[in-house]
Amino acid sequence: MNQAIALRSEIQELLDSYVETIDNDDLEAWPDHFTDDCLYEIIPKENVDFDLPAPLIRCENKHMLRDRVTALRNANIYPPTIYRHFVSGLKISRHQGDEVEFTANYLVMSTGLEGETKIYQAGRYVDRAVRLDGRWRFASKRAIFDTSRVATLLALPV
Amino acid sequence: MNQAIALRSEIQELLDSYVETIDNDDLEAWPDHFTDDCLYEIIPKENVDFDLPAPLIRCENKHMLRDRVTALRNANIYPPTIYRHFVSGLKISRHQGDEVEFTANYLVMSTGLEGETKIYQAGRYVDRAVRLDGRWRFASKRAIFDTSRVATLLALPV
Amino acid sequence: MNQAIALRSEIQELLDSYVETIDNDDLEAWPDHFTDDCLYEIIPKENVDFDLPAPLIRCENKHMLRDRVTALRNANIYPPTIYRHFVSGLKISRHQGDEVEFTANYLVMSTGLEGETKIYQAGRYVDRAVRLDGRWRFASKRAIFDTSRVATLLALPV
Repeated sequence: MNQAIALRSEIQELLDSYVETIDNDDLEAWPDHFTDDCLYEIIPKENVDFDLPAPLIRCENKHMLRDRVTALRNANIYPPTIYRHFVSGLKISRHQGDEVEFTANYLVMSTGLEGETKIYQAGRYVDRAVRLDGRWRFASKRAIFDTSRVATLLALPV
Repeated sequence: MNQAIALRSEIQELLDSYVETIDNDDLEAWPDHFTDDCLYEIIPKENVDFDLPAPLIRCENKHMLRDRVTALRNANIYPPTIYRHFVSGLKISRHQGDEVEFTANYLVMSTGLEGETKIYQAGRYVDRAVRLDGRWRFASKRAIFDTSRVATLLALPV
Repeated sequence: MNQAIALRSEIQELLDSYVETIDNDDLEAWPDHFTDDCLYEIIPKENVDFDLPAPLIRCENKHMLRDRVTALRNANIYPPTIYRHFVSGLKISRHQGDEVEFTANYLVMSTGLEGETKIYQAGRYVDRAVRLDGRWRFASKRAIFDTSRVATLLALPV
């Protein structure tokens, strides 16, 4: 099978599986998409453009991701918010063996208790994934967002 | 060819072909994506979460789909509404031979006569498709939506 | 490898690469997605439906695309606008050798200096691509948009 096509399909599947856990309240499966020593960041675009190191959220390993899930479950957030992610424009920038770097646009729509669906956040994923035991996992995932007013403490991942 | 990759591509193509008929006024081709004894439902998320059996729209075979198209054509809806569907996050949950179950996020944007594009509906497809004569068709399609204010009687399918 | 699946993947990759250059300020790479004698149009849907020949923007070769990029760079637009494209519903209508015709839905989200992400434009790509030296390029790209209020002179491409 054509290697480039297979790779695009596998990375698209990784991204699809990732957003599916967040959008369908399967938060416990969210960290499974990462390596143990992963980096996960949500950071404003201007901070990246101007090289300011202040992300909104930063997790430096899988334990921190799991802690975040626990915090979200314990907080018992009311009213619940439903996210729907849309990912498009996948571009693979580098591929070497079991490591790949890629970017994609993402859009998160959000529906609250009143039932109105709004634009929550738009941005760009800048990711690096590695393949271990035949499975791709994020070694590094940076959600670099355009939209300024975003929730932080008790927000679902993006 | 890698079977899993081929399957994802074929199911993505089924979803793409499905939305293309709705969005480009090719309603007569919309039922062709279903089996004769299909189920098609548009149902609010809370009804599914709380196991309430009241869908907004329910068609229990292809005849009912065709009746719906006829009703839309005869109603001669003015002003016309343009839908644009965006589908992302495809996840195949079960695959056995010529049958597959899968989910995906969907977003419907809507533009009315005044020319403003708004968010019409966001939700999740929970589908089952079967392959007959080499072609995949929806045996069951449930559009489970997050957005509360939606049109019913004379609305285009989602 | 299954030819139809490979083709869909390659065309999806062309569209993804195309939007990635616009959304990430890599405008100089935008014309590289076209043939030398390409056609690029941004035109309202009603003009197409009623066969009115007045596009908002029309470029009849790659030189005109490059001129447009130069104009955008020289205009030094402030405040800067960030676009995020989302493309879905790819449908290949015709394929013959190294030539393919296809359509897809597109949505452009836009974030201005104030940091609010809004819907800029929704529409449909009606495209024709040719393969030269193993690479697909747009011979003709028509962005047929639903949304009425759109920028023209100093707007990024869609």
